[in-house]
Amino acid sequence: MKRAVGEDVLVEADVFTDGHDAVVAELLWRFQGAHSWEAMPMKFAGNDHWSAAFPVERLGRYEYTVRAWTDPFVTWQRDLAKRRDAGQDLSVDFLIGAGLADVPELRDASLAADVRYRAAMEAVPPLPDASRVLTYEKTLSVTVDPLRARFSTWYELFPRSVRGDGRHASFRDVVKILPEIEAMGFDVLYLPPVHPIGVTERKGKNNALRAEPGDVGSPWAIGAKEGGHKALHPQLGSFDDFHELVSEARKRNISIALDIAFQCSPDHPYVREHPEWFRARPDGTIQYAENPPKKYQDIYPFDFETPRWQELWRELKSVFEFWIGHGVKIFRVDNPHTKSFAFWEWCIAELKAKHPETIFLSEAFTRPRVMHKLAKLGFSQSYTYFTWRTSRYELTEYFTELTKDASREYFRPNVWPNTPDILHEYLQHGGRPAFIVRVVLAATLAANYGLYGPAYELMEHTPREPGSEEYLDSEKYEIKRWDRARSDSLAPLIGRLNAIRRENAALQSDGSLRFHPTDNDQLLVYSKESGENLILVAVNLDPRYVQAGWLDFPWGDGKTYEVEDLLGGGRYTWAGRRNFVQLNPQTLPAHVFRVVRG
Amino acid sequence: MKRAVGEDVLVEADVFTDGHDAVVAELLWRFQGAHSWEAMPMKFAGNDHWSAAFPVERLGRYEYTVRAWTDPFVTWQRDLAKRRDAGQDLSVDFLIGAGLADVPELRDASLAADVRYRAAMEAVPPLPDASRVLTYEKTLSVTVDPLRARFSTWYELFPRSVRGDGRHASFRDVVKILPEIEAMGFDVLYLPPVHPIGVTERKGKNNALRAEPGDVGSPWAIGAKEGGHKALHPQLGSFDDFHELVSEARKRNISIALDIAFQCSPDHPYVREHPEWFRARPDGTIQYAENPPKKYQDIYPFDFETPRWQELWRELKSVFEFWIGHGVKIFRVDNPHTKSFAFWEWCIAELKAKHPETIFLSEAFTRPRVMHKLAKLGFSQSYTYFTWRTSRYELTEYFTELTKDASREYFRPNVWPNTPDILHEYLQHGGRPAFIVRVVLAATLAANYGLYGPAYELMEHTPREPGSEEYLDSEKYEIKRWDRARSDSLAPLIGRLNAIRRENAALQSDGSLRFHPTDNDQLLVYSKESGENLILVAVNLDPRYVQAGWLDFPWGDGKTYEVEDLLGGGRYTWAGRRNFVQLNPQTLPAHVFRVVRG
Repeated sequence: MKRAVGEDVLVEADVFTDGHDAVVAELLWRFQGAHSWEAMPMKFAGNDHWSAAFPVERLGRYEYTVRAWTDPFVTWQRDLAKRRDAGQDLSVDFLIGAGLADVPELRDASLAADVRYRAAMEAVPPLPDASRVLTYEKTLSVTVDPLRARFSTWYELFPRSVRGDGRHASFRDVVKILPEIEAMGFDVLYLPPVHPIGVTERKGKNNALRAEPGDVGSPWAIGAKEGGHKALHPQLGSFDDFHELVSEARKRNISIALDIAFQCSPDHPYVREHPEWFRARPDGTIQYAENPPKKYQDIYPFDFETPRWQELWRELKSVFEFWIGHGVKIFRVDNPHTKSFAFWEWCIAELKAKHPETIFLSEAFTRPRVMHKLAKLGFSQSYTYFTWRTSRYELTEYFTELTKDASREYFRPNVWPNTPDILHEYLQHGGRPAFIVRVVLAATLAANYGLYGPAYELMEHTPREPGSEEYLDSEKYEIKRWDRARSDSLAPLIGRLNAIRRENAALQSDGSLRFHPTDNDQLLVYSKESGENLILVAVNLDPRYVQAGWLDFPWGDGKTYEVEDLLGGGRYTWAGRRNFVQLNPQTLPAHVFRVVRG
Repeated sequence: MKRAVGEDVLVEADVFTDGHDAVVAELLWRFQGAHSWEAMPMKFAGNDHWSAAFPVERLGRYEYTVRAWTDPFVTWQRDLAKRRDAGQDLSVDFLIGAGLADVPELRDASLAADVRYRAAMEAVPPLPDASRVLTYEKTLSVTVDPLRARFSTWYELFPRSVRGDGRHASFRDVVKILPEIEAMGFDVLYLPPVHPIGVTERKGKNNALRAEPGDVGSPWAIGAKEGGHKALHPQLGSFDDFHELVSEARKRNISIALDIAFQCSPDHPYVREHPEWFRARPDGTIQYAENPPKKYQDIYPFDFETPRWQELWRELKSVFEFWIGHGVKIFRVDNPHTKSFAFWEWCIAELKAKHPETIFLSEAFTRPRVMHKLAKLGFSQSYTYFTWRTSRYELTEYFTELTKDASREYFRPNVWPNTPDILHEYLQHGGRPAFIVRVVLAATLAANYGLYGPAYELMEHTPREPGSEEYLDSEKYEIKRWDRARSDSLAPLIGRLNAIRRENAALQSDGSLRFHPTDNDQLLVYSKESGENLILVAVNLDPRYVQAGWLDFPWGDGKTYEVEDLLGGGRYTWAGRRNFVQLNPQTLPAHVFRVVRG
């Protein structure tokens, strides 16, 4: 279970017993390590169901459980009221009550029945005998993360391309564009691996098997003679440069997130110093990465089951600690599902115990149970299938699952309309409207989202070949010359969207998401709310044609009310449940309405 | 979990691991107490899901669990096939395989690649290293009951009324009507308490506070000077008479079921001999039963929490053992929810360990969680809300829950259209059609059902007062003069229904129940199947008017097929999904079709 600081944990329990005795239930909670529990009465919610909520105000872990007992005095009070309402003689009942609690009036037969009755009903039940108290056999726990684990806006960028002139850029160049990133409203700047890149078996442009002279290689081929996971690529700059980037970003409330990819190029110092951390082939070579029959000879995976695993695991954990020491709190973890579950459970628990402010994003695009398992093992956020969900049916089903299933308690979606590995067909063919639709969906369906830029705002949409989701001339293998100042850039629109997210609490969490019917399958309509803030979004999923229809939004009780389009501008007066929308992809394919309450 | 002898237990598990290694999963099971497990490979069902089923052939308890491991050799075989399909050189791969299993061909480089490949794929994977095997942390168990726990047809009858002439009847009189009960097709004959009835505070006719001279009292006011729970009411006969009843019934394949009601009349010998088993009031009297403000002064409940509870519990368990000793295997337990959960768990486990052929029916009409809890604690069958579910919506919802929810694994419904305590409004006002409808529903919706006769087949329908569910002149307080030979009796129809149940396996279990849409809300249509046997039932729920409509039954693939009405007679040729039915309550408000397969 996960929460962000300041949230509540709602605990529900079925509490019942045999017979007719009155049951009392309490919620117990404490910050992990505290030696006594806080206790709070639970409220009866009908049908043997009870609930109570406790607040989590500190980063770290809280524990909670439930205890309950049958209370003879409460039972007696409840029954006494019924007997009195029926006009029965209560004298023996008062004596029974006197045997259950020390209430002098109950013993004193000289008092009027009314006086004794009032004393009975006002008496506080004695503390329960310990032998009657049943505590739930499990102590449950919840991890409390910083707010940014629940609400974050990520921008992924290859630092080496930020100059725009084709020359290898540095962290100092990244510092220069921080104002642009801030203007677009991002609060996490995520960098692919920043380490030295191997030369052996280096891939060329468009993933060519052989690199040409001058090819810069993939940042994920980590490690060269200059160092490995704890070193910086020499052309990106020094640690001083990196520190300046972290600190300048922090001034703009932007967190630097690093990519942790536990794999090595053949030139990584680990390969020479610790060959026992890798698997050996019978011919004496080291086992390269494979997905048979595909071979990735530029990459050596670690052997998490090596006899020296303890040494290896400690070293890998120290990679996180190293970067935490350099001011990084957020880590995107590359392909965690191809590494050991046990390693992640141990590693993240150890790191969070000392650094509860850290956030770990799981980049696992794999089977649902594996993605859920990684979230249960400790990852704070998780990549999702959003990138491939484009129709109204798919989006409705998937986001209903993400926000309503039990998994919502531990699986925090972080949704991406594109990544350096995934250029979806919808973006390849849908033009500018498709790019607007997908970023509006990401920004308003999910409190955590990110995009890979400037490819996104510049609407890069050409695949390597037809049917491929890879970008042509992918930035993974070469330095790009992005023209960020292009007049058609989506940067202003993205900036407006992210400002709307910052100003509307409804968009900062996911639990309240509700879809609303429309009579046109190309129109997706949904709302989110938080306290008084109510946001209603209508999106035309068809990037080609104007779509119009009636939506059914249960609001207003038949009275008129106003909706204000925070994205496109304009205020509309609506009445009742059914209202009309029409969206033109050539102008703006979405409304993001704030519902103005009476 | 419960099963009947001869059934299967389908076990499903999510089994997955990190990385890309091949997973192998096995189901383990054994009869409780066996010292080794049977093992069976589980089958991969996609999406990390695995399943296997084991048969339960003996009465008692079975245990089962799941174990799994990643298998390097199976992984290697899987990948080898992919590499070969891609035309890759396999020489190093053969050597890797040779390190995983002792297959001589893999080591022998002089052999042709094809020969080595075939040997590789035909090799049996070595047994897994114990350190790689993960066994599910829980050992689960399933109670295997006799077939009658799953499929039974109960007839409840007050033995003292069977003469029909108003005089107190005996077990010998019951023996005389066994042929009638057999002809109606019942296989459980359930008798309300057969013990001496108290005289102190005895209730009169229609539950009058004071009995008149000659009033026989309620059989549930158990215990008098002649004895208690281990004695027979003197007018019912001797133990020899009782034994004859049990043995004559057995010859007709009818089990005698007794009612176990753990409560005492003030005259019960326990009250005198063990006052410490009851709760004392401050005025020195014994606490009578109450549901404040109502008082039941003719009944003393046991105090399950008395300091002498161990003695009390042992004595109560011995009541069951006493009657088991007298040939009784089936017990209907009165109001088990007002007794201790812990008592039932202990008592039923002890009894089933020695007498796995016993069946316990829980008569708890209370909150759903309490009813489920009793089933989990060990009761073999449970009363349900069927008695109050009369509309199409209610019946569909409730029976979908009973047959599809996880609770179906432990909660076996036993449904009753009436009981001596419940004459539902639908029967009060619906006339003969209502009685036919309700018994058809009970007999075909549920594999276990029962009714209280002869009140049922004689369509007794007058309530004590308007709005009451109590019978007027209830048999609970007086001897009735039933005219079982009445020409309008439903006995022949009930006999036909129960014969249909015996001859059609589809009606002998509940899991296959499916409801089918109709375009008329008064028509309820559902099917059940077992192997080749497919039964389709259509019921007109409106006891007043003819109702007709189209049903949607996905069968026949558009071809014509025949349905045979086993209840009303007649064969119909149907085609495709949509077919027409019309049901007249004045003749027969239901079809019970057997679908004749091509």
